[in-house]
Amino acid sequence: MTKTELIKQIQNISNLNYISALLEWDQETQMPTSGSERRSEQMALLAGIQSDYATNPLFQESLINIDLNSCTDDEKVIFTDAIQEAKKSKLLSKSLKEEIAKHQSLGQHAWATAREKNDFESFKPYLEKLLNLKKEYAKSLKSLYPDKNDYEILLDEYEPGLRVSIIDDLFSQLKPQLIDLIKRIELKQDKGIRFPNSFPLDLQEEFAMSVIEDIGFDFDRARVDLSAHPFCTNFSSNDVRITTNYDESDFTKSFFSLLHETGHALYELGMNDDFHGTALAMPISLGIHESQSRFWENNIGRSRGFWTHYLPQLKSLFKKEFKNIKFEDFLKKINSVAANSIRIDADEVTYNFHIFIRYEIERDLFADKITVNDIPLVWKQKYKEYLNLDINSDSEGCLQDVHWSLGLFGYFPTYTLGNIYAAQIYQYLKQEKPHLKTDISKGNFTELRSWLNEQIHKQGKRYSANDLIKKITGNELDSNYFIQYLEEKFKDMYQI
Amino acid sequence: MTKTELIKQIQNISNLNYISALLEWDQETQMPTSGSERRSEQMALLAGIQSDYATNPLFQESLINIDLNSCTDDEKVIFTDAIQEAKKSKLLSKSLKEEIAKHQSLGQHAWATAREKNDFESFKPYLEKLLNLKKEYAKSLKSLYPDKNDYEILLDEYEPGLRVSIIDDLFSQLKPQLIDLIKRIELKQDKGIRFPNSFPLDLQEEFAMSVIEDIGFDFDRARVDLSAHPFCTNFSSNDVRITTNYDESDFTKSFFSLLHETGHALYELGMNDDFHGTALAMPISLGIHESQSRFWENNIGRSRGFWTHYLPQLKSLFKKEFKNIKFEDFLKKINSVAANSIRIDADEVTYNFHIFIRYEIERDLFADKITVNDIPLVWKQKYKEYLNLDINSDSEGCLQDVHWSLGLFGYFPTYTLGNIYAAQIYQYLKQEKPHLKTDISKGNFTELRSWLNEQIHKQGKRYSANDLIKKITGNELDSNYFIQYLEEKFKDMYQI
Repeated sequence: MTKTELIKQIQNISNLNYISALLEWDQETQMPTSGSERRSEQMALLAGIQSDYATNPLFQESLINIDLNSCTDDEKVIFTDAIQEAKKSKLLSKSLKEEIAKHQSLGQHAWATAREKNDFESFKPYLEKLLNLKKEYAKSLKSLYPDKNDYEILLDEYEPGLRVSIIDDLFSQLKPQLIDLIKRIELKQDKGIRFPNSFPLDLQEEFAMSVIEDIGFDFDRARVDLSAHPFCTNFSSNDVRITTNYDESDFTKSFFSLLHETGHALYELGMNDDFHGTALAMPISLGIHESQSRFWENNIGRSRGFWTHYLPQLKSLFKKEFKNIKFEDFLKKINSVAANSIRIDADEVTYNFHIFIRYEIERDLFADKITVNDIPLVWKQKYKEYLNLDINSDSEGCLQDVHWSLGLFGYFPTYTLGNIYAAQIYQYLKQEKPHLKTDISKGNFTELRSWLNEQIHKQGKRYSANDLIKKITGNELDSNYFIQYLEEKFKDMYQI
Repeated sequence: MTKTELIKQIQNISNLNYISALLEWDQETQMPTSGSERRSEQMALLAGIQSDYATNPLFQESLINIDLNSCTDDEKVIFTDAIQEAKKSKLLSKSLKEEIAKHQSLGQHAWATAREKNDFESFKPYLEKLLNLKKEYAKSLKSLYPDKNDYEILLDEYEPGLRVSIIDDLFSQLKPQLIDLIKRIELKQDKGIRFPNSFPLDLQEEFAMSVIEDIGFDFDRARVDLSAHPFCTNFSSNDVRITTNYDESDFTKSFFSLLHETGHALYELGMNDDFHGTALAMPISLGIHESQSRFWENNIGRSRGFWTHYLPQLKSLFKKEFKNIKFEDFLKKINSVAANSIRIDADEVTYNFHIFIRYEIERDLFADKITVNDIPLVWKQKYKEYLNLDINSDSEGCLQDVHWSLGLFGYFPTYTLGNIYAAQIYQYLKQEKPHLKTDISKGNFTELRSWLNEQIHKQGKRYSANDLIKKITGNELDSNYFIQYLEEKFKDMYQI
């Protein structure tokens, strides 16, 4: 196959992924539930076709034998990534892929029932099966990663190059600093700030849509729908979809979740469509993806400057609800820090403990230090130790998130990586482009968005996450930026 | 391949069609327009995969060599249909399929622009290309249909077994009878009945949704969305989608169009899901499909009994709009007969002339009696002759419908076939099950729907359209039923 034919085939394989993504999006947002059985069949069919395309011998051989020295820089990025994917596809048997797909579907159903009934026991065999399948998956890829253990091979799927030692370093630095910060904040926090608890849904939607449009969500190339759990997906950089759900009693839930998903959407919308379906129009890693969502949700969306512009708008829309709220109280309220048993409802400080706990359990499961059986007890012990929370129900404990039911072990750490990347970018901009602060307080995001687009979005996978963060900020990934960001923010509010 | 493997592969091919249908549905109802370029790529990819699956040599050989005598009745239906499809796929070159797919896409774009600008000249080369491709398509299949001409081979795609001689007989019988009927109705029609011309959209939706639910539209297995042109599609019999668009000035447009699409939806919802993706869960023909939509739209939906039940509901919802309307006036208004240059806005009597004209032009194009160049003039002559209408713009003339821009020659006649099938079924029921009239006037459609389901929907392709109509009504397809239905209806209203 010629280079052009190879690129066409790489794009075909991506397009098959995009088609699957559309089927999933439809399932979450539109499909009548009765459609699920045949939809699963259609998903499985696509997965099989995708595998056949990726492991096609002519494609494999042509790709792996390509002379990278004869390639342009762009081609090098595209083919290097494609070669890695092709090697992985070849090492993974079709039967293992099908087994995993099948048990993901079974696992997700079993998890949903188990969570509803608070019945971890019923979920256990599914989780064990998925854990074993993912160990087998990792072992299949071992020859590509000779110096990595099983868990690190899985980490690589989500965050290329990530290692247990890196996570351990980052997390062990963060842990005591965050504990100390939480203690200081708790001493100063005013728990008596009154916040309304009923927000008409149409006004919530009106406000959120106008804000995300200001930020850069392009309604001509993207759309917002409703789903049980918010997510972002896309089928090209010109067709991006995010979802939300509104909670009448709390406008902050959907609002910050929409900022979050908008951050993800801007990343996908910002790719260069000329390179559709290749590594030059794909996200680098889940950590970098999450940095884009957390940046808008937290660094910008919970900042003083942001609300300097938007609180007056919010007040004029929710006249009754926010009639008497003071700016400082509003800012403190949306930044209040309090341990919460539910990850997705956590504030940006305590949030990371949810990740530390998930990570430690995953790592120890893969190192055979604990078994699936131990999860509920270990969970409770760690929540008591780190967050001083008593977890009385597995539904609000280890069963709260869908990830493990899909076998996504190694995914959780990228959430905290996202927080760190985002803070490092934010602190860099604060230092180097101080005028952006004024822009934000005027609701002007043009330069900020362009900068993110130029520096990150349209680079695709041109750089590794490590190289990119160094290129942008001058430094390697460093958790101190995250601490510094939080310290400055809470000092500003509480003079701690 | 074993029988089981063959059936699995037949279902896979169907599932690829269903996946394509989902991509199309999404494109019409949800997709940001900017997504169209990459969506076309994804559609083309699926078309290619579908072709590869259908022409796979092992599949082809195993299927064509199957011993039908060793098959159950169900298997015979499934394999006979699959063998025919496989033979067609094999005779059609992949490059022809791709050429057609490409020119359908180009043709549709060119048509939309031409219609907007009233510029037939700009559309002409695209139409000529599609006509030639479809002639080549027909010629490729000639060995399967040795006694059919090109146009008849295309007719067979939509209505298996249909011939020019059958259409000519039916249409030439209908034409003078309809002309006579129209003249008599026109003499009696009261053109002065006043009808409101503004209907709040939310009330239109509320009314229509409650009616289609009464009829049997199952919102747990189907959904309604908005699109520019109404259509029905499905991805299994448990996931059926219809679309509409509301016109504030005329509630009848969306209402009857929703009844129409609901009729199509009931057919698909009524298939036996155990046979998903096989001929036993597929519609027989477009004519039979259209009979199900026209039955609910016209035979039931514009009947005296139907509005005996629903006019009071309509009045209580549109209090202001329908305050003073009399039942007889309402019935006459929704059944008023008047030549209209636009097919989809036509009444059920003059409607058929639109079809006669399309058919005559198609037939003569394929017989090389006229060329694409002649279409606008021939169009105007025929509209003057049959409907006494002066067509001053091609946009409201030969450019009004999308079908030809997609190369769908041979499709139009099935619309009038649908009217005849529907009337034949309706007249049979009127005679044999007179109590259904009382049911309908009470808004009770249970028995009627069950009967349609048992007799038609869940049969899939078990019988040919011809055999089915004979099995149900005791007679071959006969246009006299349609005339009889119209005569009785208008006699009841106007004593003509």
